[in-house]
Parts: sequence; structure tokens; C-alpha cells
Amino acid sequence: MKKDALMVLSGGMDSVTMLYEYASTIDLAVNFTYGSNHNERELEMARYHCKKLGIELVEIALPFIGELFNSSLLEGAETVPDADYDFDNMKSTVVPFRNGIMLAAAAGLAESRGLEAVMIANHSGDHAIYPDCRDGFIKAMAKAISEGTYEHIELRAPYTLLSKAQIVEHGKNYGVDYSMTYSCYKGGDVHCGTCGTCRERKQAFAEAGLADPTVYEV
Amino acid sequence: MKKDALMVLSGGMDSVTMLYEYASTIDLAVNFTYGSNHNERELEMARYHCKKLGIELVEIALPFIGELFNSSLLEGAETVPDADYDFDNMKSTVVPFRNGIMLAAAAGLAESRGLEAVMIANHSGDHAIYPDCRDGFIKAMAKAISEGTYEHIELRAPYTLLSKAQIVEHGKNYGVDYSMTYSCYKGGDVHCGTCGTCRERKQAFAEAGLADPTVYEV
Repeated sequence: MKKDALMVLSGGMDSVTMLYEYASTIDLAVNFTYGSNHNERELEMARYHCKKLGIELVEIALPFIGELFNSSLLEGAETVPDADYDFDNMKSTVVPFRNGIMLAAAAGLAESRGLEAVMIANHSGDHAIYPDCRDGFIKAMAKAISEGTYEHIELRAPYTLLSKAQIVEHGKNYGVDYSMTYSCYKGGDVHCGTCGTCRERKQAFAEAGLADPTVYEV
Repeated sequence: MKKDALMVLSGGMDSVTMLYEYASTIDLAVNFTYGSNHNERELEMARYHCKKLGIELVEIALPFIGELFNSSLLEGAETVPDADYDFDNMKSTVVPFRNGIMLAAAAGLAESRGLEAVMIANHSGDHAIYPDCRDGFIKAMAKAISEGTYEHIELRAPYTLLSKAQIVEHGKNYGVDYSMTYSCYKGGDVHCGTCGTCRERKQAFAEAGLADPTVYEV
């Protein structure tokens, strides 16, 4: 396989799984920090896996998001709701058009580096909540990136139609150590276990029938 | 008219003209700096016109572009070619997917502020050189922004099919003071008069049959 892709890597379960599954095609990983409660913990995980796999990691700070955008994810951890991962609970955590911003920056960097594709690990569990994780957005953004670059950079989002449980099953096949991934929107040292993303994380392991290696406060 | 739009404002001739022509719909202007030779001079112009028109200006720094992307526009002024504004001469000045990155950030901020549209002043004179100024890119990016936001933010690019000379004619009708706009890719105190963007600027006034108020070194 040709190492022709740049991948957006948060350090959460989904993107870390994709990093392992597609390692033979990934030349460069890019982590974005934007002032959220959990960015720093995620970044530690991204660094760990890139080092382990020998993949270069570029770290890009987007401080304007934290300074200018409204989202409970960008405020104190106490503003993140303790409730199920559904629309009403999670709406306050949305960072508007976050995937659009990260993919646009990734596309420019990919073209600058002579790479042929950008990759992102959006999945179907996020569709109800985040419009910029849905298939319609991904298809339109793929066209925008192709049209707006000289080399017609390709957007690859192979998990778009998978559930988080299915992603965990993929990861098991590639030996992903999920204790070295981070999900909690509160950003503490230990996963809280009660916010929407912690609940979604627990559910993914349960649905996949796999042991959850995560240490939760609750 | 309703003030429902956020506009990407560089401080060059095209975006300043749009700011005046569409002032009654523009609630917020956003200027992006990304480490180019001419960003600071452009920003001064953006501030001047926003103050004059009573439009709020937000300034967003994207330092990762200057640090990570390859472009003569991001290096010393001496690397900017002294030649006509055509593909071979201007290619080195391209900042890959710059409009994609600025529009994505603008879309997120517009949604965060409850605005309904983003505006950009791309025009037909740039189509040959910059893929992210072409109609195909604008249409695809419009779809991506609409699909990727809750409120289906609209992308307005009313100059897409106009020439720079036609834009100058619009500006004359709105009393735009073009001595307070900046184009030169070298970023000096005075327009150099010999780089591609200075030549394009001179040509626009000549084609429009209007006096050029710009002071040029050459």
C-alpha cells in the first residue's frame, strides 16, 4: 500500500482504531486542539499511538475556536451534561462545523505535503447529533476538497456508516489498546463515566461483547 | 435588509467593495491572518473600513498555515515573482485550500453567532490560478456548509463570475476609496507595482476606465 494519506487523529477510540487499521496508507497524522476540556488528554493518546506506529504527528492549535465559539465543551467541565448520548443532552457540547474546519485545514496541509488524501473517523453513532459527521456532509465536503485543490485531494471516511461498537470490533482485530484512548468530555485524569461520551463508550464495548479496559470514576 | 451575514474580509479591493455593496446585510466581518507578507497591511485596511461602516470586525490568526504550508506568499517578499498575474508566475504564491479553510472557520463562527450566511469575494480573475476561487468549488463548499450546520448556513459569493474591473465599477457606485485597500503580495508600505497582484490591480482600473489612486514604487 502507498502511504498517501493524512489522517485527522483526535486520540479517541474511533480515530485511534482507524490509525491502526489504515496505518499502511497513513503518512501523516494531524491532531487539532481548540480549547476543549478534553483536548490535552486526547493529544497524549494521539502522541502515544503515533510513536508506537512510527507515524509522524503534526499538532495544530486552533485557539480562535475556544475564544470565539459557544459550546459547553469549551467551558468548564461542570457545564458538560451528565446524561445519555442523545440529541437533547449533547447539543450544548457541539462545536459548530468542527469537522469542516479540521478537514479544510487537513486538505490544505495534504496538498502542501504532496499527499493524495485526507481521512477522518466520523461514524454513524454521531449522525443524530452532529450534522458535520453525516454522510451528506462528508460527500459534499469531499467534492469541495477535490474541486478546491490542484491535485483533487480525496476525502476518505470509511467508518461513516459503522457504529461505535463495530469500530471497537475492528480495533480488536488490530490489537488496539483502548485503555490508551480518551473519550470523556470533562477532560479529567480518569473518565467520569457519567457524561454522554463516557456512556457511549461503555455502551460500545457492551454491544461489541468485549471487556472495557477503561477506568471510570462512576 | 436583514443583517444576517458574516463576511470574510481581507482588506483587498474585492472584499472591501463587497463590504460596501452589501453593508446592509453584513453583521460581522472576519479577517484572517496566516503569516503572509501582506496580511498586516491588509488588516489595517479591513479595520479602517469596518470602523467607517460601523461593522464589527473579528480578527482570527491561523499561524499553522505560515508554519506548516509551503508558499512563496508565506516567505520573504523577495520570493514573490515580479511578473504578470498568470498561472506560471502565481503558482508559487498559492496557499493551498486557503478559501476552504477561511470559509469553514467562518461557517462555524456564523452558526455560533446565530447568523444565516457567510460571504466571500472570490472573482473570475482568480479562477485560472486558484482552484478554491472557482464556481465548482464554491457550489460544493456551499453544499458542505449547508449540510454540516444545524441551521443550513448559506454561502454567498456574488462576485464569482465578475472580473476585477467589474468589481471596481461596483465600488465606484458605492464610493469606495481604493487608496485604502491593499493588494501587493510583497507587503511593503507602498505597493511595489511589479508583482503579479500589483499588475492585476493596475489592469483592473485601466479596464474599468477609472483613475487608479494607488501609489506604486514602479
